[in-house]
Amino acid sequence: MTKNMNYFNRFADKKVLITGGLGFIGSALARTLVANGAKVTVVDSLIPEYGGNLFNVDGIKESISINISDVRDPFAMAYLLRGQEYLFNLAGQTSHMDSMHNPQTDLDINAAAQLSILEACKKHNPAIKIVFASTRQLYGKPAYLPVDEAHPIRPVDVNGINKLAGEWYHILYNNVYGIKACALRLTNTYGPGMRVKDARQTFLGVWMRNIVEGKPVQVFGDGTQLRDFNYVDDVVDALLLAALSEDSNGEIFNLGSSEVINLKDLAAKLDAMHAGSRHQIVPFPPERKAIDIGDYYSDFTKIRTALGWTPKVGLDQGLRQSLEYYQQHWRHYWESMQ
Amino acid sequence: MTKNMNYFNRFADKKVLITGGLGFIGSALARTLVANGAKVTVVDSLIPEYGGNLFNVDGIKESISINISDVRDPFAMAYLLRGQEYLFNLAGQTSHMDSMHNPQTDLDINAAAQLSILEACKKHNPAIKIVFASTRQLYGKPAYLPVDEAHPIRPVDVNGINKLAGEWYHILYNNVYGIKACALRLTNTYGPGMRVKDARQTFLGVWMRNIVEGKPVQVFGDGTQLRDFNYVDDVVDALLLAALSEDSNGEIFNLGSSEVINLKDLAAKLDAMHAGSRHQIVPFPPERKAIDIGDYYSDFTKIRTALGWTPKVGLDQGLRQSLEYYQQHWRHYWESMQ
Repeated sequence: MTKNMNYFNRFADKKVLITGGLGFIGSALARTLVANGAKVTVVDSLIPEYGGNLFNVDGIKESISINISDVRDPFAMAYLLRGQEYLFNLAGQTSHMDSMHNPQTDLDINAAAQLSILEACKKHNPAIKIVFASTRQLYGKPAYLPVDEAHPIRPVDVNGINKLAGEWYHILYNNVYGIKACALRLTNTYGPGMRVKDARQTFLGVWMRNIVEGKPVQVFGDGTQLRDFNYVDDVVDALLLAALSEDSNGEIFNLGSSEVINLKDLAAKLDAMHAGSRHQIVPFPPERKAIDIGDYYSDFTKIRTALGWTPKVGLDQGLRQSLEYYQQHWRHYWESMQ
Repeated sequence: MTKNMNYFNRFADKKVLITGGLGFIGSALARTLVANGAKVTVVDSLIPEYGGNLFNVDGIKESISINISDVRDPFAMAYLLRGQEYLFNLAGQTSHMDSMHNPQTDLDINAAAQLSILEACKKHNPAIKIVFASTRQLYGKPAYLPVDEAHPIRPVDVNGINKLAGEWYHILYNNVYGIKACALRLTNTYGPGMRVKDARQTFLGVWMRNIVEGKPVQVFGDGTQLRDFNYVDDVVDALLLAALSEDSNGEIFNLGSSEVINLKDLAAKLDAMHAGSRHQIVPFPPERKAIDIGDYYSDFTKIRTALGWTPKVGLDQGLRQSLEYYQQHWRHYWESMQ
């Protein structure tokens, strides 16, 4: 980030609502906002299959207001949105596989609830600024690399279609009703607090768990699939910059990283960081193969130019910090070592 | 169409379900299918604000099975889909303005119900072939003309976003589960049977009504907006060709016409056809202006090449037939002359 840290002092005394605020990214965001003096309310459903975890707000519990409810509850949301100056709208169903098995649930959370949140803003709080967490999953299998925002949209799973609808409702309400809203299309985000119990949020989560448990990491396919990764603190910076900028209104921005790596090399990097860690190259399970997107990495020139954002935490540093976190705190993220 | 009419004899004895089958296009499709010996079931909710009208199937009522129900009723749909060989999936909320006033209803019909229909096909009838009626509204304001299928997708209203989700669920279920499905993106369709009571389905509908009632036609803006129009029989041909082709599976096709015309000239054309008819150029109502797409006409090369479809009914002939129809049958489409 080119702007200095004091820039986020602008959130001092601001009323901020974070949906999915007990989740991985939401809780990291809450932490930074609290450090900058914001009045933070987090909403989270704490549905066991999703990313919410009270331990994620350990240490800031007393400094925030925690409201357990679901973005699908229009009455709760309408109440919670009143008087807020910023909404970081991060709650979502993030599992690609779950979206195929329970498409209607994915639709209810990622599309229908978003529409209802925007309707509530239109009725009760039209001056709010919204930053919506979208996903690179919308692009589907890349037609070219790196993928910029002009890349065709062609989601390969139900989650991608519903997130697209959710994202575009935001842009539409900005354009038609002047509800200030923008969307960030996140790539693979990782770091302390991510769901590691299983592969629902990111495959890197279950890799971390396996490493800490001393089990081999499984790399699907041939391991040559390219990916880019953002450390969670960098994503928090992007969310905050987008919230503070008027230039972001109505805009969609890719996040991304210049540190592109294939999955095999990523697994090897983790092996090297952790004594005894090892990985296996295994065939794709067929139902994962059907929705796999091949190589992916983002062009994030637009957000760099418009908002001055660049990722600061390198992959080595970020992975090391994440591994250390789960070695220390694993008990808060899964039941027992197996 | 390059193929001769006997080609549609292939539907003889085929079991065909049409959602929105008492609507404008659905009923015209049912008529052609009946003429070709198909066993047709139509589903329609007959919601007064939508396009369903029992008079649309006058003369074929005894030859089809009529089931009044709603595509949002998953139990009715699961029952009706069993054993069908073709599904023409035309039911939809089509009003752009209504989608802004009741976005959740639009989502329920145009997205959620579509997902539930596809889930029912996956579970109970995976061999069915589906043709989905989509819309050029997905493209939003054209970046270039004519608009082909590679044009960026950027809907300007809630209806466009939800129709997009509904369309892509179909393509996804084709690609992932092998449920044969394709989508046609319709442009302005007109002809006998269209909703003329108000402007909910197409502005040309309310124009027809005004002409028959001897009232002036209102042209919004400056009247220079370009549009292309398809006569309903041509759209029926496209739906049938898409259903019979294996090459259509997983594909999206624009419909369109080479007869591009601006709204002022279209109004003048109607004036010339009907003694006493006249039009007025009036400013855009603001809420319509917010979702107006400017000039639009389609490139339909893809469907012409792949399926041999071209529109056959010229605008003069089609408009004349439509006017005659409503002069004769207006009582079945609105209450009384005012």
